[in-house]
Formats: sequence, structure tokens, C-alpha cells
Amino acid sequence: MEEKEISQAVIGRLPRYFRYLGELKDQGIERVSSQELSDIMKVTASQIRQDFNNFGGFGQQGYGYNVEYLFQEIGKILGLDKSHNLIIIGAGNLGQALANYGNFERRGFLFMGIFDKNPLLYGRRIRDREVRPMEDMEEYVKSNHIDIAVLTIPKTEAEAVAQRLVRSGIKGIWNFAHVDLNVPEEVQVENVHLSDSLMKLSYNISSFQKNR
Amino acid sequence: MEEKEISQAVIGRLPRYFRYLGELKDQGIERVSSQELSDIMKVTASQIRQDFNNFGGFGQQGYGYNVEYLFQEIGKILGLDKSHNLIIIGAGNLGQALANYGNFERRGFLFMGIFDKNPLLYGRRIRDREVRPMEDMEEYVKSNHIDIAVLTIPKTEAEAVAQRLVRSGIKGIWNFAHVDLNVPEEVQVENVHLSDSLMKLSYNISSFQKNR
Repeated sequence: MEEKEISQAVIGRLPRYFRYLGELKDQGIERVSSQELSDIMKVTASQIRQDFNNFGGFGQQGYGYNVEYLFQEIGKILGLDKSHNLIIIGAGNLGQALANYGNFERRGFLFMGIFDKNPLLYGRRIRDREVRPMEDMEEYVKSNHIDIAVLTIPKTEAEAVAQRLVRSGIKGIWNFAHVDLNVPEEVQVENVHLSDSLMKLSYNISSFQKNR
Repeated sequence: MEEKEISQAVIGRLPRYFRYLGELKDQGIERVSSQELSDIMKVTASQIRQDFNNFGGFGQQGYGYNVEYLFQEIGKILGLDKSHNLIIIGAGNLGQALANYGNFERRGFLFMGIFDKNPLLYGRRIRDREVRPMEDMEEYVKSNHIDIAVLTIPKTEAEAVAQRLVRSGIKGIWNFAHVDLNVPEEVQVENVHLSDSLMKLSYNISSFQKNR
């Protein structure tokens, strides 16, 4: 299966499929047709079939997909069949919010530690992990098999910290700093640029007013 | 100018242009060519020209774009020439993190209030605004010309709260609840589904390992 060629647009839709299938599963629903999935997800049935065909189609029968199977398979594709060890860099409001977000744990993202450069925070416990100094980061990544680092630090510091993480062998960076990072291709970066998202909302509000 | 027809993909790239132009402006750079912009932003120069042509091209001369002008124009398109009054629903970790994020204010998003259903939080001050009970939300939206509501509440509560906001005349919802909201088309919704973003990172890590 040549997953490498699957577009980021398709990949971007997988978590949403996974979420809706999880909800169907929780409701005890065993089978779903692409038309039913289309109705609840508000995408076309043909889009769904096309997306799933990227992964071999998941064996839809005349009477639809097996919900549990489809949920498991998409979970595997998303790499959720393995757990990930995650650290958070920056123990400010956002870092603490993410540390306390228990839902991630349910999906196998294990919160292993949190780091900050502010000595006043050292030792303070967040979700049972004490805040550690930045100097300890590299060693901690290596000895605890950390694969994901979450950056919730100012953009002026993000690039340098990212480089240190790269040298420590990190596999993925979840970047909340408002800057695009330059890292080698073996390190995956997923950006959450909150200001960009808010500006997009502002555009859509303003555009709707103009065109009504 | 028929902005209605501009694709969400183009719109999604505007904040990033705005951010890079702001940085050039801060560096005192007055003109930039699409090639220079291409180099720093790592998109093709032809993509940049194509995107800008949606808005009339911004009058590029032989020697490039005027940075200040382009920054202002894209800001206007994004609706950043007007300020927005914003409230946050949910005074948990994430709600507090967003309330304390001063950068939004710089772009004209004014934090006007924060609401929660937990009476223990009422009156607590966050960024100089006291936490208010949910019952006061509708009245507050109307009498304070609130146009954006930020939802940082559990997904089970988000839909009902969104409907109340819609009835109060809200124009936009910035939704951090892990659910897709059903609102009329005159209300704009921008989702930040953090779990989806983390799963996409997980996919890219897992896919890179398999294909190396």
C-alpha cells in the first residue's frame, strides 16, 4: 500500500471519519452505508468512497461498512494502534491546558513531561508531572523514548528549541508557536496557528456581510 | 469584487501571507518580489501571483510589491480593519489560555467576557473580566455587540450553547469543542479540532516510518 502518495487533504479528513465512526460505535451501530455516513458527515458519498479507496476500500458490501472494523482500520492508518510518548515545551496557560486534556491519553498520546525556562515553575506538578528546566530536555527525550514534542513557547524561541529536539531524535513536533519551523524531512511537523484560524473566521464574517 | 467565489484554500493562505508581510514590515523592508516572498514562505512564486490575482493582483510592479500596502490590503480583506468583540464560553484551562493570549487584541479581537456554568468560578477575574454565569450570555451578547464567541466547552454541551448564541445574533463561532456544529449559513464557524490535528501528526509519523 503506497501511503506515501496519499494527499494531505485525504489525510486531513481521516480523523473526522475516525471521530464519527467512534460515535456510531458508541451508539452500538454495527453497519453503516456510505450514504448514511454521507448524511451525518455532510460530505458526498462519492467523496467517502473515493477517500476510502486510497486504502483499499475497506471491503464495503452491498449493505455497507462494518463500523467496528472501519474504526479499527482507520485508527491503524492514523498510527493510533501504537502509543506515543509526548512532552510539552512551555508550561504557560496553553501548555497546561494541553497537559490537562485527558482525551489525548485515550487515543494513546501519553503525557510524559513538561518543560519551561522559568525557574519559578520548576517542580510545580501538572497532571502529576513536575515542570522541568529546559536544560534537561534533550536527555529526557532520549531516555524516555519521547516521540512527540508540543511547542507552546513564543515564536522567537521556537526555532532554536525545535533544532535541539531534532538533534535529540524527536519524530514529530506539534507546533503552536506562530512561526513555520525549518526541520529535516524525517521530522514531521503539524502546525496549529491559532491566529491564522481566527483571521480566517474574521474573513468569513466580513465576506458574508459584504455579500449578503 | 466577487469575494464570495474565492476558495477556502486561498482564504486559508491569507493569514500566512499577512504574517510574513508583517515580519518584513517590522524589519523595515519596503518592497518584496513574488520570488523573494516565494523563497521565505516556501510556496511557488506562481502560487503567490495566482492567490493575489483573486484580489486584483495588488498592483505588482516590475520591482515587486509594496510591503506596507500589501500588508494593509490583506488585513482589510481579512476584516482586520474593523475590531471584533469576542467572548469565551468555558473558563477552563483552554478558555483561560485564550483569554490571556494578548496577540489577538493586537489584531483587533477584543476580549470582552468569559462565561462558565461552574458557580465556583463566578466572579473570578481573568484578564480583568470576571467569569459570568451562562444564564447571562444572551443578554451580554446583545448589549455588548459581541460578534464572535469562542467555544471551549465539552462537545456534549457545544451544540445547545451554539444554538443559544445563534438566537442572540452572534456572527461567528470559533469552535474548540470536538464536534461539528449545525448553524444557519449566516453564522460563520471556524473549527479548531485539536485531536484531529494530533492524529494527523500521528499519521505522518507512522507513514514516514513505514516508507523509509
